[in-house]
Amino acid sequence: MSEFTHFNHQGRAKMVDITTKEESSRCAIAQSSITVNQAIYEGITSNQMKKGDVLAVAQVAGIMAAKQTSNMIPMCHPIPISGVDIQFEWIEKNSSFQLQIQVTVKTKGSTGVEMEALTAASVCALTIYDMCKALDKGMVIGQTYLTHKSGGKTGDFDRSSID
Amino acid sequence: MSEFTHFNHQGRAKMVDITTKEESSRCAIAQSSITVNQAIYEGITSNQMKKGDVLAVAQVAGIMAAKQTSNMIPMCHPIPISGVDIQFEWIEKNSSFQLQIQVTVKTKGSTGVEMEALTAASVCALTIYDMCKALDKGMVIGQTYLTHKSGGKTGDFDRSSID
Amino acid sequence: MSEFTHFNHQGRAKMVDITTKEESSRCAIAQSSITVNQAIYEGITSNQMKKGDVLAVAQVAGIMAAKQTSNMIPMCHPIPISGVDIQFEWIEKNSSFQLQIQVTVKTKGSTGVEMEALTAASVCALTIYDMCKALDKGMVIGQTYLTHKSGGKTGDFDRSSID
Amino acid sequence: MSEFTHFNHQGRAKMVDITTKEESSRCAIAQSSITVNQAIYEGITSNQMKKGDVLAVAQVAGIMAAKQTSNMIPMCHPIPISGVDIQFEWIEKNSSFQLQIQVTVKTKGSTGVEMEALTAASVCALTIYDMCKALDKGMVIGQTYLTHKSGGKTGDFDRSSID
Amino acid sequence: MSEFTHFNHQGRAKMVDITTKEESSRCAIAQSSITVNQAIYEGITSNQMKKGDVLAVAQVAGIMAAKQTSNMIPMCHPIPISGVDIQFEWIEKNSSFQLQIQVTVKTKGSTGVEMEALTAASVCALTIYDMCKALDKGMVIGQTYLTHKSGGKTGDFDRSSID
Amino acid sequence: MSEFTHFNHQGRAKMVDITTKEESSRCAIAQSSITVNQAIYEGITSNQMKKGDVLAVAQVAGIMAAKQTSNMIPMCHPIPISGVDIQFEWIEKNSSFQLQIQVTVKTKGSTGVEMEALTAASVCALTIYDMCKALDKGMVIGQTYLTHKSGGKTGDFDRSSID
Repeated sequence: MSEFTHFNHQGRAKMVDITTKEESSRCAIAQSSITVNQAIYEGITSNQMKKGDVLAVAQVAGIMAAKQTSNMIPMCHPIPISGVDIQFEWIEKNSSFQLQIQVTVKTKGSTGVEMEALTAASVCALTIYDMCKALDKGMVIGQTYLTHKSGGKTGDFDRSSID
Repeated sequence: MSEFTHFNHQGRAKMVDITTKEESSRCAIAQSSITVNQAIYEGITSNQMKKGDVLAVAQVAGIMAAKQTSNMIPMCHPIPISGVDIQFEWIEKNSSFQLQIQVTVKTKGSTGVEMEALTAASVCALTIYDMCKALDKGMVIGQTYLTHKSGGKTGDFDRSSID
Repeated sequence: MSEFTHFNHQGRAKMVDITTKEESSRCAIAQSSITVNQAIYEGITSNQMKKGDVLAVAQVAGIMAAKQTSNMIPMCHPIPISGVDIQFEWIEKNSSFQLQIQVTVKTKGSTGVEMEALTAASVCALTIYDMCKALDKGMVIGQTYLTHKSGGKTGDFDRSSID
Repeated sequence: MSEFTHFNHQGRAKMVDITTKEESSRCAIAQSSITVNQAIYEGITSNQMKKGDVLAVAQVAGIMAAKQTSNMIPMCHPIPISGVDIQFEWIEKNSSFQLQIQVTVKTKGSTGVEMEALTAASVCALTIYDMCKALDKGMVIGQTYLTHKSGGKTGDFDRSSID
Repeated sequence: MSEFTHFNHQGRAKMVDITTKEESSRCAIAQSSITVNQAIYEGITSNQMKKGDVLAVAQVAGIMAAKQTSNMIPMCHPIPISGVDIQFEWIEKNSSFQLQIQVTVKTKGSTGVEMEALTAASVCALTIYDMCKALDKGMVIGQTYLTHKSGGKTGDFDRSSID
Repeated sequence: MSEFTHFNHQGRAKMVDITTKEESSRCAIAQSSITVNQAIYEGITSNQMKKGDVLAVAQVAGIMAAKQTSNMIPMCHPIPISGVDIQFEWIEKNSSFQLQIQVTVKTKGSTGVEMEALTAASVCALTIYDMCKALDKGMVIGQTYLTHKSGGKTGDFDRSSID
């Protein structure tokens, strides 16, 4: 079994030293979702025709969260990320409505941006919850996970969407 | 259907005015989880015997995130939260290991702390992912949702854990 | 002449003590603007028909900035603001296009929210500059000032828009 | 007409990918101002003889704001800025007093620092407003704009001060 | 022996619940210091005659740190502080020069501001170190401690300066 | 005497320009301490056997503070730090108990990480104070200073622990 890398010889958490790691172009894609009822689905999608909408706010929140990741996740290295893109897709199943959230983060740096992508996806989903909770507090944020990672020495990672 | 409250008459997002709402004692409980493989499960639980451990770091991250909620979620009101408690519980199913994360947030204020509880639960799960991702990038953060809310005019909310 | 209140007896800046001030409902309205060329004007306004738009991003930035005001302005007291609303209006003059930005901030607290309204208006204008600067770096952010303030002991303040 | 670069193919805001842009030395200079009455002018300038003064606080606020720019402006890339300098100059016109604020920001990076210079200039002006508003809430923050930009592929930009 | 209050029944850190504590006027005073060589002492004190100076920057940093305390100290409650004042005093001993830093913080709230005062004093000393370290990296930040606390149920606390 | 580098030709504070400095591997080690009574000493050390403990929280706080240094110390350059490690050691003297805190910070950048190490050490000590202050407000944070610095053009710095 590989060892946990986040602990020093006193057994306490440390931020792992990456000083000697080479810089390379890196990319990570994460996925989350939120399932809402029909009233909220209609509210969000009809609003998209207007000037402001729920997803525009969530998009901004997700992008800003990507930049704040190392201030939220204690052992995460600060990385000057070079690009963030968030895509939405609605899936109707069994008369409930699931909004798929996919976040792509890129950087040129000494460590990966998996945490930035996962954090942006989570905050994006949380923001949608916040803006719709006056209608229904029963919304559920779905599974959140990495679907792709490339760049760096540990090799690529890919998984398909979880049903 | 109730209306979205987060939009002004130009159809743009606003932070809803709560100036005239009464202060009251409020509580919210949210739940999240993360499913890990056996190597990580053993690494985390055996580490708990030592001085530092993964869950201690995640606990701190979750509590600090609760305090940062209104800086992450755009339309969320700043609230001086008065207490945060996070509980962990391991559930073994089908030879995988799920860590249940339950966050309780309290305040005395003019609006609820649902977002603070949900955000703390998410950041707690993200932190565990971060500290174990050198062993396996395939961990999945489970569904994240509100299980209890009390205080305020809209009445109480309760739901049981989702399987 | 009244005295500067922000200095202690050593002549150094301090945060003025407001411990004994009564809480009251307070409101402040500030105004800023940004003048853009025709290409940008058309880009922004035609975009408003789509799902995302420049002003939606600026709106979120302004609201988040209102919440961060006391972290940016050194002697400004932290206040849990209770509402923020931002309105936009286009004015065409002499073949240039000026976007008027009006920010209303409300709170129930011991000190006013003038700085929150002014800061939100400025950050809103800065965000529009950022999103359009690939087209023209010559945009000018217009005068930024308070147009209304009510609540508190010092009385109300009102001024009309500056031409 | 050039295209807006801040939108993805869903028409939503994204943070533009700059992974492949070359690092180069970059510089941006922005200008803002604040116009105050005679009592405030005398208060600020006579205070400069003492140990603390309004402009020293504004200077610190502006420099700290330059470092926070990417946390305030949603689509702005985080850049480790390498230098900030702020200069003040008083201009008397028609018995009112205008403080000119000029901010120079430098970096060695993949994108420019126009937003950092503009943000620092705005926050500097806002801080002066904050520290003098007990004397007069009618102060006006003047036009804020870029006067110089160099470095990067898009070439240099220069404009003279606006009257 | 009293019990640690910062741990839940799982033995993990929590933010203590203060929902039912009464609001009262509270004050805390903390002290720190930094000892510098003669060249730095002369540089700082002669600079005080000019418009900018080291202590003015440190003062601003200390006040801003007081407002950020609950974001730095994990189990610390967010409190809207109502006043901060920082005083400096030079003491010459044995041909070295010690700058005494005294910070007073006030609030009207449900918990004390001891951490805010201590944090502001520390950050004030750290800022002076930062601005003078080009001359001598051997400066020492002295003992940092609480000298006074009043308000709240646990009674007052007073201690004299430590030699 | 060398000159202060943090002031512009107007005598005001600036962030020194490091655009042309070469990147190199850098390391800084800082030391702080906190002296506690026997009850607190026993509380902390016996707690180390359990899952959560005071030092685990302080460790996280110190690491997160290292990442926030340039947002707390006004003239400090933002640096993407590449590693942080914090070590604790108890020293009993004269029936009081002193916890030694040693912080090592590494980076590959254009300027040193002395401030990051000193800030992390201070915040670490402040966090321990916070978590134990219900037992005794008389704890004293000891001298805080640099013990080692390497990398960069100004050469190495080393000092032994101060008694």
